[in-house]
Amino acid sequence: MTSRTCLSIILAAGEGTRMKSALPKVLHPVAGLEMVAHVMNAAKLAGSEALALVIGHGADKVRAAIEGRAGTAEFYLQEKQLGTANAVLAAREAIARDYDDVLVMFGDTPLIDAAALTDMRASLADGAAVAVMGFRTESPTGYGRLIERDGTLVAIREEKDCSDEERRIQFCNGGIMAIAGAHALALLDQVGNANAKGEFYLTDIVEIAVKDGLSVRAIEASFENALGVNNRAELAQAEAIWQKRRRHELLLQGVTMIAPETVFLSHDTEIGQDTVIEPNVFFAPGVRVGSGVTIHAFCHFEQASIADGAQIGPYARLRPGADVQDKAKIGNFVEVKKSVIEVGAKVNHLSYIGDTSVGAKANIGAGTITCNYDGFNKHRTVIGAGAFVGSNSSLVAPITIGAGAYVGSGSVVTKDIPDDALAVARGRQTNLEGRGKQLRDRLAKEKEAKQKK
Amino acid sequence: MTSRTCLSIILAAGEGTRMKSALPKVLHPVAGLEMVAHVMNAAKLAGSEALALVIGHGADKVRAAIEGRAGTAEFYLQEKQLGTANAVLAAREAIARDYDDVLVMFGDTPLIDAAALTDMRASLADGAAVAVMGFRTESPTGYGRLIERDGTLVAIREEKDCSDEERRIQFCNGGIMAIAGAHALALLDQVGNANAKGEFYLTDIVEIAVKDGLSVRAIEASFENALGVNNRAELAQAEAIWQKRRRHELLLQGVTMIAPETVFLSHDTEIGQDTVIEPNVFFAPGVRVGSGVTIHAFCHFEQASIADGAQIGPYARLRPGADVQDKAKIGNFVEVKKSVIEVGAKVNHLSYIGDTSVGAKANIGAGTITCNYDGFNKHRTVIGAGAFVGSNSSLVAPITIGAGAYVGSGSVVTKDIPDDALAVARGRQTNLEGRGKQLRDRLAKEKEAKQKK
Amino acid sequence: MTSRTCLSIILAAGEGTRMKSALPKVLHPVAGLEMVAHVMNAAKLAGSEALALVIGHGADKVRAAIEGRAGTAEFYLQEKQLGTANAVLAAREAIARDYDDVLVMFGDTPLIDAAALTDMRASLADGAAVAVMGFRTESPTGYGRLIERDGTLVAIREEKDCSDEERRIQFCNGGIMAIAGAHALALLDQVGNANAKGEFYLTDIVEIAVKDGLSVRAIEASFENALGVNNRAELAQAEAIWQKRRRHELLLQGVTMIAPETVFLSHDTEIGQDTVIEPNVFFAPGVRVGSGVTIHAFCHFEQASIADGAQIGPYARLRPGADVQDKAKIGNFVEVKKSVIEVGAKVNHLSYIGDTSVGAKANIGAGTITCNYDGFNKHRTVIGAGAFVGSNSSLVAPITIGAGAYVGSGSVVTKDIPDDALAVARGRQTNLEGRGKQLRDRLAKEKEAKQKK
Repeated sequence: MTSRTCLSIILAAGEGTRMKSALPKVLHPVAGLEMVAHVMNAAKLAGSEALALVIGHGADKVRAAIEGRAGTAEFYLQEKQLGTANAVLAAREAIARDYDDVLVMFGDTPLIDAAALTDMRASLADGAAVAVMGFRTESPTGYGRLIERDGTLVAIREEKDCSDEERRIQFCNGGIMAIAGAHALALLDQVGNANAKGEFYLTDIVEIAVKDGLSVRAIEASFENALGVNNRAELAQAEAIWQKRRRHELLLQGVTMIAPETVFLSHDTEIGQDTVIEPNVFFAPGVRVGSGVTIHAFCHFEQASIADGAQIGPYARLRPGADVQDKAKIGNFVEVKKSVIEVGAKVNHLSYIGDTSVGAKANIGAGTITCNYDGFNKHRTVIGAGAFVGSNSSLVAPITIGAGAYVGSGSVVTKDIPDDALAVARGRQTNLEGRGKQLRDRLAKEKEAKQKK
Repeated sequence: MTSRTCLSIILAAGEGTRMKSALPKVLHPVAGLEMVAHVMNAAKLAGSEALALVIGHGADKVRAAIEGRAGTAEFYLQEKQLGTANAVLAAREAIARDYDDVLVMFGDTPLIDAAALTDMRASLADGAAVAVMGFRTESPTGYGRLIERDGTLVAIREEKDCSDEERRIQFCNGGIMAIAGAHALALLDQVGNANAKGEFYLTDIVEIAVKDGLSVRAIEASFENALGVNNRAELAQAEAIWQKRRRHELLLQGVTMIAPETVFLSHDTEIGQDTVIEPNVFFAPGVRVGSGVTIHAFCHFEQASIADGAQIGPYARLRPGADVQDKAKIGNFVEVKKSVIEVGAKVNHLSYIGDTSVGAKANIGAGTITCNYDGFNKHRTVIGAGAFVGSNSSLVAPITIGAGAYVGSGSVVTKDIPDDALAVARGRQTNLEGRGKQLRDRLAKEKEAKQKK
Repeated sequence: MTSRTCLSIILAAGEGTRMKSALPKVLHPVAGLEMVAHVMNAAKLAGSEALALVIGHGADKVRAAIEGRAGTAEFYLQEKQLGTANAVLAAREAIARDYDDVLVMFGDTPLIDAAALTDMRASLADGAAVAVMGFRTESPTGYGRLIERDGTLVAIREEKDCSDEERRIQFCNGGIMAIAGAHALALLDQVGNANAKGEFYLTDIVEIAVKDGLSVRAIEASFENALGVNNRAELAQAEAIWQKRRRHELLLQGVTMIAPETVFLSHDTEIGQDTVIEPNVFFAPGVRVGSGVTIHAFCHFEQASIADGAQIGPYARLRPGADVQDKAKIGNFVEVKKSVIEVGAKVNHLSYIGDTSVGAKANIGAGTITCNYDGFNKHRTVIGAGAFVGSNSSLVAPITIGAGAYVGSGSVVTKDIPDDALAVARGRQTNLEGRGKQLRDRLAKEKEAKQKK
């Protein structure tokens, strides 16, 4: 790692009208994390100790979403959208603090990779005053071309200004720049707005630097680094590329996915070796899965933890605070929220377990519901180790079911049950001979009568 | 829009043996709508005031499925399959009514686009007697080629009859034709069957028209317009193309889909801006979704309406007549049928709500079941505004739960509950100390005994 | 079919470190069947009456998983990994039994096709001493090239040993070999290990045979035949190819899949004509589906049978032993295990049916749970024909509900119910006027008090 200091300026002031959204563009998530946060993470991984976010449209929303989380991020307001150079200069105060390297990135390129940024910084360390990220493509139409001469970048040419020869260049401007801190303000202040739109373009500093006799380089990176999201189709495209990459990493780490393309991961999903995942599983943020876990199809997880050897699903939903311990089992149509399911416990079918502690090896019968909410407050249920809760029981919290206790099926449990006790709480059965048939006959007649009307 | 009159003849008499189906081919759906209905819709959008369906195989089924819905469609029976020209002439009576334009389409090309038909009609308005839809492809093998000379179509050549030079032509016959009404019967009546199969081919009218000195043109359209479905793999292919198109439209309109390729839409699905859809959501026909709705993964909707700001799923099933109003919440493993869930009401977990009205801000506890069916008749449940229904309750309809009423968890409610009343309907709990352990010991012994046998 | 005898030697001794798995590589499944079992099946289909599995790493696990199932498979242990020729010779005893044909295959190529093997055997019948499977690819980099001269294979050249000209060859070694039994041992025993790694390479027998004046041929097959799985990304790739093939077959056989790419089949899944499958359905092994069945989205099946005209799902889970008979209906959030659902019976919503027989045309209400497990033993539930089980009932097994019986909603049924009887087993309802409001007011105050703390 270099010992040079680094400021990353992230431009996040644009309106993003093509997103057609009340949410500022840079807050739209990829892999469960806002695009701008992906960019911030890449900047930090590339060694930036300072982050400056230039905000404008939806500034309050962006600030509210990102503040605090970022740690060292400062916010600078670009009052009017007068071009990218103008946006960068909104952070003049930060630039003036004399960092060795100044990186300029965009808040809507969520696939940017720290390695590409590191390459650009290395170029500055190597003497360049400006480094521009470029990518190669066989379909360059629409992109600005990087015009090189003798290994030096001499200009970034917009397509409309290209000569025929230049138009054939397949090395295109990725937008991201690294500027030596020593030259940054001097270069930026020379950018003018004598152009059709009257805007100050950051790309102009290439020709300014060349004119000043400074060294300017183009650093090649993959297209994804520069993939800007301008509408929701592009957002979905970025998501798809991210997912594909991360799935591939997990496969190579020893996770089996029968159909990787149907497993949706978040930015922070971690999954252990020899875990097998059937198709159609969704990981919202905050999920950790251990080793040797079986995850059946159609599961949905968020802020939950699944320990080694557990068996989950199909159709299991783990909500925030679900903590499924070793070899525990969560079966079909089961929802778990803010609950610990201890080692070897089983909740196999059609249950809602909320604000509950299920003891080791306890067995929770099909259709069991923890009644944790009284309309105003949430209450806790505690189920002891080895307890057996009969099917279709209702456990009215706050309630404690002792270790080794046994609850009869269909009970509505409202009082605590001591350890090893048997509890039954249900109505008595009455069989009325022949009355079933009578009832049927009557109902059938009623139906007939109704249909005649 | 042109003021010319137009008849569309849709050929839907073929057997479709490769579909291997008891259902006539043209009734197989794409995006939840029969293929032939897609074609009819395109014809109407292109300005046809009259539709003639030529039916044959499975005629009764086609007629039964389409009749009524179509409005102006007439049905003509093609008794024997004697070729496409013969099929068109089954609608002789309609053609004889002297429309300006006669369009001939096929009932198994569900992706046909009104714009292409409109282009063909424009060609007639411009003086052509016959216009043929063509498409360009780099793999023309197997298709008839459109032979043009000086901008005029002179023949449609079957591949087997092509010269080497003609075989290199990449402009192919899409099958769809527009014929000037003034010439239609005269041209069709000249078609002969002096060919290997003894059939009357519609394509022959091109050469007949040319011979008569009439103007014939080829109108280019995209391949999809001519995509005929002959087996279920092609049906799936047509579906996939349709889905991809419609998803893209919705993305650009401001709907977020994390994984668009996993969201399945119907022909009439409408979704508002800033609605976010997680992966794996299925829209059967008849669904309208408002703006700012969150739809979690694994939802299934049919003939249902979801208003602005609602939160749905995961694993929510909305069946016909589900009406989820603003900011209402339908959670996991919840089925709603013929019920209104009023503003801000919540049905969060494991519930069946059928034939019910849930009042504004009412809270329906986990595991609540409306017992709406007595084996013969369906009955209504009415739940007042702000009511709280405790978890795992059974509401035996017909029943009314008053506004602000409170139902204890695990109750079986069989009598109406007044406004603001508290209702409890469950058995009393008995705890038997130590008896849980005794029962376990006995059951364990029984198991052991059984295993020894 | 040839009358020649055939031994297939399947090499399954490799470590497969890149799988990063505690499970031996060849036991990782594709389409629910271990890779090595796919290879064994292909061998049998190609007429091998004897199978020899050469095992090494994880030998005990492989033997335990495969033994018995295979019928005629013998196991041979390769003590040390000294190369493929050495591995084949581990089965010397089997080879010495003088089969006409000896096929050598790999346990990690699950997509191998019997037809390709049959072609190779035909080549032996036609006089070749050795036949090598080859595939053509436009990206041959990394593969050994098949060097042919005058229609004879003269060498398999590793890429690093290729001349520039040889490197341009696009016909590559697929690894699989057929050797005439009469020459097999003589050829194999001549293989030496005078190479960089000191291993005995099977591929060397090509040059040995040529040197001995024997006829050697390359037999072309598709790439998939040779697709070896070395990590879980390749496992997923093999699975994807398998799934795509099988789906296509079913489509052509008359099964509708709205989105075939979302339907996951097993090696033995069978589905009848005119069955319609919505997106996202998972078939684990052992499932048979009849004709005219409707399978809604999000279903999960394993070792289950679904008869003609049944309607299933969405969100239906059929576990081992589920037997859904003609026109029966299994609805949403329903789990069925070891149970028969007789003709026309309905289990429509939120139910768990285990170890149960549901009689013809019986109706099982929403939320019904069979309480089949007492914590130690499983017990049976028998529901007679035409019975009506009210919603949210708990049926405590062992229990019999008579034909035509009627169970009131919300009942906990613990005693048998005679035919045509009416049974009710629930608590009585008490309505306390105004007390709902009082309770709410109190709970609201409590909440407020808590929030103040």
